[in-house]
Amino acid sequence: MTGSGESAAAALAIGIDIGGTKVAGGLVDVDGAVVGRARRDTPHRSKSPDVVEDTIVEVVSELISLVGTEGLGEVGSVGIGAAGFVAADRATVVFAPHLSWRDEPLEANLQRRVPVPISVDNDANAAAWAEWRFGAAQGESHVVMVNLGTGIGGAVLIDGQIMRGRFGIAGEFGHMQVVPGGQRCECGNKGCWEQYASGNALVREARSLMTANSPMAVDLAARVSGDASDLTGPVITQAARDGDPTATELLAEIGHWLGVGIANLAAALDPGLFVVGGGVSAAGDLLLDPARATFRRTLTGRGYRAEARIVAAAMGNEAGLVGAADLSRRGAGESAATGG
Amino acid sequence: MTGSGESAAAALAIGIDIGGTKVAGGLVDVDGAVVGRARRDTPHRSKSPDVVEDTIVEVVSELISLVGTEGLGEVGSVGIGAAGFVAADRATVVFAPHLSWRDEPLEANLQRRVPVPISVDNDANAAAWAEWRFGAAQGESHVVMVNLGTGIGGAVLIDGQIMRGRFGIAGEFGHMQVVPGGQRCECGNKGCWEQYASGNALVREARSLMTANSPMAVDLAARVSGDASDLTGPVITQAARDGDPTATELLAEIGHWLGVGIANLAAALDPGLFVVGGGVSAAGDLLLDPARATFRRTLTGRGYRAEARIVAAAMGNEAGLVGAADLSRRGAGESAATGG
Repeated sequence: MTGSGESAAAALAIGIDIGGTKVAGGLVDVDGAVVGRARRDTPHRSKSPDVVEDTIVEVVSELISLVGTEGLGEVGSVGIGAAGFVAADRATVVFAPHLSWRDEPLEANLQRRVPVPISVDNDANAAAWAEWRFGAAQGESHVVMVNLGTGIGGAVLIDGQIMRGRFGIAGEFGHMQVVPGGQRCECGNKGCWEQYASGNALVREARSLMTANSPMAVDLAARVSGDASDLTGPVITQAARDGDPTATELLAEIGHWLGVGIANLAAALDPGLFVVGGGVSAAGDLLLDPARATFRRTLTGRGYRAEARIVAAAMGNEAGLVGAADLSRRGAGESAATGG
Repeated sequence: MTGSGESAAAALAIGIDIGGTKVAGGLVDVDGAVVGRARRDTPHRSKSPDVVEDTIVEVVSELISLVGTEGLGEVGSVGIGAAGFVAADRATVVFAPHLSWRDEPLEANLQRRVPVPISVDNDANAAAWAEWRFGAAQGESHVVMVNLGTGIGGAVLIDGQIMRGRFGIAGEFGHMQVVPGGQRCECGNKGCWEQYASGNALVREARSLMTANSPMAVDLAARVSGDASDLTGPVITQAARDGDPTATELLAEIGHWLGVGIANLAAALDPGLFVVGGGVSAAGDLLLDPARATFRRTLTGRGYRAEARIVAAAMGNEAGLVGAADLSRRGAGESAATGG
């Protein structure tokens, strides 16, 4: 894709996406294409910083070997997208509700073991960046990303600049309270948005119907041979696609709460575009149509104001690693170099 | 304060603050001092655009005469702070939940009748600007303003730039839903934040206790000779200052909801400072201590992250007109000229 030696040196970047249960890595070129992949699952509920960091180093090493083996050029940088609060220094994970990181100096720990420059960012910031550079948000000046995975990740991009906040951890929409005294959240609070509009929420509600032997859950139960622990987001989404009214209703409920939160964010941030990503967004309009309906019904001043559009993410589940890789090329000064 | 003729021409600006029940105007110098005042009440519930615009023109004319009479120099511009959604053109009031403006071309209508350049801004943006330039937010890079008046106005300042959003109406925090299916709001929705943490909410709750003949409301009832319609925010605040436990509790309840909303905004925006202004903020720590307590209890990642401070506004109830005047000097490019 590039000719000169200097460009070739920076042509590939490694992106690493750290979620609650896996470390996924990719070799990403300057156009956002993933040209090589590596992935490890992390042991469920054993998310000690050491285990996760070892896993990241393994994935990076595998990708660097791959570059050598396949003659792909050279890796210029590594970008980490982490499901946690990343400090303004883009080096420290301050707090990770779904991992056991507290004030973890991730960049320093990894930099000792990896031979190219590393930068760390929040995973939703990385995904939003990928959507803005290469995906559904190209050309948009005011973008809010809502990533529905285990929880809810969020990011705000204004004129191609990630809004980081004073301490680096803006965009933690998942922990905005939407129901006073509501469902307990892993973060310690109750009624957080991600307890109502995430993959976890979808699965929790479906399992709850099934374990109560609700007649509404017959189709879902049949799909997992009666074992509620096998009920996952993709299973529920497939059931809805196949016309199961209960699965459709469960997705619509998640969509409703998505719309409530989006209307709140529209009141505060007034973006032109909401991009909905993450695993649950694979449900497409089964999720987004109910979200749009609630949003339109809830937005203050509706009919008298321009309304943000709500669209599905375009970069799929590799958005996080593509964005992290692309951000790592830019260091902290990403806003200055957005030429694409 | 200034010597040369050119500076003198811009030394005074008129600021106009349009609330639900009054039009307040002031002559504001380059240091944010109000050197002359004019004010009209607007007839309650008769808020037709014409009446309000006539009132604004009267107030501006009175202030311009005052300048001539007192030899104060010259008025260079007029800034309007309006309690409504102001479009990105800073000329049109798109929607005003508490006034009857819908797509009102306020700047054009006024410019025909006023001899100096006019700009229009949201009243909370104007107040936040005043606090950042001259008040409680000086030197802060990430500021969120929460103005508790009839409703809740809001604004976000990042590096001295007002965050306006794609369509100009960011910062409408008052209409974020905090209670699903909660109190009906004038905007048409239910459960909006301003139904729980505003002057209106405080008065509604106090009157409701009093009209139910609650024994808790004996002190409050005595202060208004038994006429609930005379119960106002200042009366309740005074009762709390005098030690009435019911009034104290009512303010604490408003403070609690203030803290809930502030924690939500911290999750999304991660500012370094919240400035609480508006009439209710006159209650000071009777309001802010409960807000701080709820905020600390509710903030996700508490103990592992830097926390925003919550302070009372410093510019009093003239913040809106001071900020509107100062913004009018800068036109749309306020961010470029913040030298003070």
